[in-house]
Amino acid sequence: MSFSDQELKNYAAFAERLADAARAQTLPRFRNGIDVANKAGASFDPVTEADRESERVQRELITKTYPEHGVIGEEFGASGADRPWRWVLDPIDGTRAYVCGIATWTTLIGLEHEQKPVLSVIDQPFTDERWIAFNGATLFRRSGETIACKTSGVTDIKKSRISTTDPRPTAYFTEREAAAYARIAELSRIERFSLDAYGYGHVALGELDLIIESGLQHHDYAALVPVIEGAGGVITNWQGERVGSDDRNEVLAAATPKLHAAAMEVLRG
Amino acid sequence: MSFSDQELKNYAAFAERLADAARAQTLPRFRNGIDVANKAGASFDPVTEADRESERVQRELITKTYPEHGVIGEEFGASGADRPWRWVLDPIDGTRAYVCGIATWTTLIGLEHEQKPVLSVIDQPFTDERWIAFNGATLFRRSGETIACKTSGVTDIKKSRISTTDPRPTAYFTEREAAAYARIAELSRIERFSLDAYGYGHVALGELDLIIESGLQHHDYAALVPVIEGAGGVITNWQGERVGSDDRNEVLAAATPKLHAAAMEVLRG
Repeated sequence: MSFSDQELKNYAAFAERLADAARAQTLPRFRNGIDVANKAGASFDPVTEADRESERVQRELITKTYPEHGVIGEEFGASGADRPWRWVLDPIDGTRAYVCGIATWTTLIGLEHEQKPVLSVIDQPFTDERWIAFNGATLFRRSGETIACKTSGVTDIKKSRISTTDPRPTAYFTEREAAAYARIAELSRIERFSLDAYGYGHVALGELDLIIESGLQHHDYAALVPVIEGAGGVITNWQGERVGSDDRNEVLAAATPKLHAAAMEVLRG
Repeated sequence: MSFSDQELKNYAAFAERLADAARAQTLPRFRNGIDVANKAGASFDPVTEADRESERVQRELITKTYPEHGVIGEEFGASGADRPWRWVLDPIDGTRAYVCGIATWTTLIGLEHEQKPVLSVIDQPFTDERWIAFNGATLFRRSGETIACKTSGVTDIKKSRISTTDPRPTAYFTEREAAAYARIAELSRIERFSLDAYGYGHVALGELDLIIESGLQHHDYAALVPVIEGAGGVITNWQGERVGSDDRNEVLAAATPKLHAAAMEVLRG
């Protein structure tokens, strides 16, 4: 790698500034749907505005602070995506949770060096939860307290707490994928749905053990890889390759290498 | 009714004392699975302990303060259930969320007078969210700020944000119920899962519009009725009757009477 630990540390502090700037746009608009709609008419969409304003202020900060870096964002696309350093932004991951007033949406900030994810932040403003991952560690910060994340030691699917955003073949999964997920679900201890990226934070905390998804976009998964790996977990596609290297953008995140291998085996059928 | 508004107001203050006492048991054990397990061995189960200790301290408070009242609790069963006033307790609704470190579990406290729900509290300690319903109103309190809840004005299924804990026929729903739910889901705007009682609080806040469930227990639904009705919503079984009056304990909660009627129509098929 052609950068120092200190350089990454500086970028981590900057990524937290981005998360703070995003919070100032997303949090005041959260659970304000009715009031805002009443004030401004039915054409007003607080989610869309929060999404766009959040990305806009983050892009401004990046351009001002690191004009030589590229940016890829969910809302405004790519600029300088071929540069050595690039930021990957999803201002509101889990917009459906946001629209329903449920605080499982997050702001995702990823930093890639030569296409490889090296740093990320997952931020939930309403609950004041923030994951910061770089230099092979994942920190979790809430109400001024910071802890180092460690995935659970679970190695057996039968003991695993698993999650996927929607288990049905009608949403993210194809029929084949839904059937593969169902095979694991049947063996597992507990299932939870509708968590989007927030669930990966729970794997890092040791509270969930396995996440099985598909159809994620670059801005969805860029921030997930450092958070899972920094906490001692494994995150790949369903074939054990780098996330984003297959057509479906399948994701398999596990607390331990053994659980990951066991899950791959069952997914293969 | 043979009681005054003031009497109910006193019970509301007491119900909040119960919720506070429950918090002191549930919150310190939340997300402590790994540490606690490492300290005390694999046989130690923090959820079970939180559940039982929470109900134990609440029952103690009730017996001490209102010895003439009955109590029905999820953990320790019924005592004096035939008395005019009885408390219905679910110390941790959503234990699976609790076990996965996800703050969508709640403490449910219901007060019934001659078998009718007249007051309730839904409490989420980690996010510091509390719903308090009595005298035809539902209050929402967070970080010392209190607002009056009002359901959304949504009347059309196509515009509705709907929720159920698990949409599949393998969990709560029978095949017939899952098919009926799926008919509504197909028409709806957004679906969210895995919320348990917490979702009903979001209907009261105007953030969700429709919840369709089945197989709820008395300790699950007792606290839901005042919260939904106090915010202007409608909550019945799938036939429009009192919740708990059919064998399946089906629940249909809606933001508006019109949406409720439309959902009943589709559920009937």
